[in-house]
Amino acid sequence: MSGAASGAASGAEGGAPLRVGLAGLGTVGGGVARLLTQNAALIAARAGRKVVLTAVSARDRARDRGVDLGGVAWEADPAALAARPDVDVVVEVIGGSEGPGRAVVEAALAQGRAVVTANKALLAHHGAALAAMAEAAGLALRFEAAVAGGIPIVKALSEGLAANRVARVYGVLNGTCNYILTEMARSGRDYAAVLAEAQAKGYAEADPSFDVGGVDAGHKLALLATLAFGCAPDFDGVSLEGIERVSLADIAHADELGYRVKLLGVARRAGDGVERAVRPCLVRADSAIGQLDGVTNAVVVEADPLGTAVFEGPGAGAGATASAVVADLIDIARGACGPAFGVPTATLTHPGAGAAPTAAHYLRLSLQDRPGALAEVAQDLGLEGVSIRAMRQHDHPGCGGATVLIVTHACARAALDRALARIAASPVALAEPVALRIEDV
Amino acid sequence: MSGAASGAASGAEGGAPLRVGLAGLGTVGGGVARLLTQNAALIAARAGRKVVLTAVSARDRARDRGVDLGGVAWEADPAALAARPDVDVVVEVIGGSEGPGRAVVEAALAQGRAVVTANKALLAHHGAALAAMAEAAGLALRFEAAVAGGIPIVKALSEGLAANRVARVYGVLNGTCNYILTEMARSGRDYAAVLAEAQAKGYAEADPSFDVGGVDAGHKLALLATLAFGCAPDFDGVSLEGIERVSLADIAHADELGYRVKLLGVARRAGDGVERAVRPCLVRADSAIGQLDGVTNAVVVEADPLGTAVFEGPGAGAGATASAVVADLIDIARGACGPAFGVPTATLTHPGAGAAPTAAHYLRLSLQDRPGALAEVAQDLGLEGVSIRAMRQHDHPGCGGATVLIVTHACARAALDRALARIAASPVALAEPVALRIEDV
Repeated sequence: MSGAASGAASGAEGGAPLRVGLAGLGTVGGGVARLLTQNAALIAARAGRKVVLTAVSARDRARDRGVDLGGVAWEADPAALAARPDVDVVVEVIGGSEGPGRAVVEAALAQGRAVVTANKALLAHHGAALAAMAEAAGLALRFEAAVAGGIPIVKALSEGLAANRVARVYGVLNGTCNYILTEMARSGRDYAAVLAEAQAKGYAEADPSFDVGGVDAGHKLALLATLAFGCAPDFDGVSLEGIERVSLADIAHADELGYRVKLLGVARRAGDGVERAVRPCLVRADSAIGQLDGVTNAVVVEADPLGTAVFEGPGAGAGATASAVVADLIDIARGACGPAFGVPTATLTHPGAGAAPTAAHYLRLSLQDRPGALAEVAQDLGLEGVSIRAMRQHDHPGCGGATVLIVTHACARAALDRALARIAASPVALAEPVALRIEDV
Repeated sequence: MSGAASGAASGAEGGAPLRVGLAGLGTVGGGVARLLTQNAALIAARAGRKVVLTAVSARDRARDRGVDLGGVAWEADPAALAARPDVDVVVEVIGGSEGPGRAVVEAALAQGRAVVTANKALLAHHGAALAAMAEAAGLALRFEAAVAGGIPIVKALSEGLAANRVARVYGVLNGTCNYILTEMARSGRDYAAVLAEAQAKGYAEADPSFDVGGVDAGHKLALLATLAFGCAPDFDGVSLEGIERVSLADIAHADELGYRVKLLGVARRAGDGVERAVRPCLVRADSAIGQLDGVTNAVVVEADPLGTAVFEGPGAGAGATASAVVADLIDIARGACGPAFGVPTATLTHPGAGAAPTAAHYLRLSLQDRPGALAEVAQDLGLEGVSIRAMRQHDHPGCGGATVLIVTHACARAALDRALARIAASPVALAEPVALRIEDV
């Protein structure tokens, strides 16, 4: 038989169900348990065999998860799921880069169990080592739910667009931040007020730093960069800036100039390296990303020969995350066992950040309203080779100050920062200058 | 070893290259040949083995395809590719539901070769029979390029979202039509003028009826319905209406009401059936579909528990189509050989169109500008249970006529058509009424 026809994967085995051990029964774990029950027939038809929950582990045994777990075994220690003879694949939805989440994944791979995880922190920090463990054992390690929730972007990058050379992948990867920025723009309320409301609504955690500081988006971006560019997951290689200092003034001025402020994760080829960054950026208001409101996530892939593809959908929540986890289970039931990141783990590279790309920037300067102030700013920028594409001045009569908005032509950030330091030190400056990158989307 | 770990698919075989016979060397075939050459190393890394073009077939042997075909065997008869011992998988990019495209696919499956095809017409008409042939022989039959070009929507529906119960899938599936409608709206020129320009630019064929009549979108929709709902591909079950009669007046009035006119393919559960239709619709101007300009395609999936996901990208062209074809080849190189439509072919269903869904409609009526005309229209609609959500009248002083725009509440199309027939027969009507469905997107 030809090579094309010989891959009789286990999807053809029929009969034997795929037996799932579920570590974690919080929002996501409960969603997985419910989905496996509610769509059982459909899942079996698509997987080629039944996918059944046989064992679970969670701290609180009493809580109602909206699903009958009566026939399911219960383990106090999640890592014990890996040793059960009635578990083929362990689903880890505990979370965290260390601790029990990591322990259960390592135990599962060590004991010959495939793994499906939604744990972006774990993979962003330890992905290469875990992928190598899985690959050595011929086991699947899947993580569709770890990036952009219900959007099947892991599959798109590692399979659907696998023939392409990716130039850039970017997106809105954290729904909490996008909700906050959208609400600030919509309501005219400031960051603190909207964050408090988001916390009250359950869109933001009591300690929001993981989201608003860009850490969560950074974990996802590290994985996107791996899938797009074949570099090992490297959270420490992601430059992080959160939304805590995005002001209402900048959102309003961006709008006035035809832009929206978004927290973007961006990974792109930059010479021999791969730039990886999460930062608040201005994007064109009429772009797909600019139009993206609320908690929705979006990922844009620019690739050759494809061109540009956009993927939008719910980035979090029980249903979206369960959708992704169970898609991975179906793939495993069908026989998927290729390398976790789409290429042999030993070939993953360790690029630097590469040549710093140039970009247009938005600047907001608070200057003394006196003759010569603008000329001085223009000169400081010009000395560093930063040229001005557009400028707009708002006077504030009575207080002697003016807000000057500048959109630069593409420039190196280092040069811009030198110019801004000079401006900040000048007597014409009334406050620290603000600079936000304009991402070309 | 557990079931999860036992699917040692052929991706792990390494070594032996996947040998491709390419039937058709037009725009798409040339793109496939170039991509296999240009991204060969990247494709091999992701596929786990080399993917090499060993034989081709096309009518014109002399034409330059921008790729060196020197070491590749040439067959005059495309079906002869299927018999070559150095071909594992046949790529069919000839097109057409009958003739040589169909013949080469049938020959390949009969002779134990996997098939990758971009041929939407073939699968929309003969998909179930071909899938059954492939499945009986344990062969892959893949068609990512047949639906929405470079957007990996076949994979998304059959794998990435496989755990979901889909409620509705819809989209802009024909770039030519979207270009024409977008250009009409942008430039204010009418259908004939914009079509002529599109033909001059190569965006539309000399005989455009396949595109503008909705046939091409209908082929794709038939396949989307199969992937989403598990019904056998049934082109004859798709209700078709093209864009030939979309007027500039309706585009302008839609805009005035906050809508855009798009040619939508829509498949949705409707009671026990599945509604499948391609028709010009009004959609909210601020929706993802409403914002979609030019030749870009988009597909929206509404599913439980996922929610809504949007996929946008290039729907045609050499690069986008080659991207999809080679993604399928990579999957096959990795060992994919599951059923073509994601579920066993024998389980594909044959639903009817189901209960006719209700929808809001846009109406444009040309009426005599005299007292009582509007009352008569409202009465005719009311008699059929069609209620009015909004109405707007444009008088045309001097000619004695008025244009009346009506947005209805959700109503059954049959009832609306009865009301419109009564209005058309009335002396107050100066022209045939126009009715366009408002698709809730």
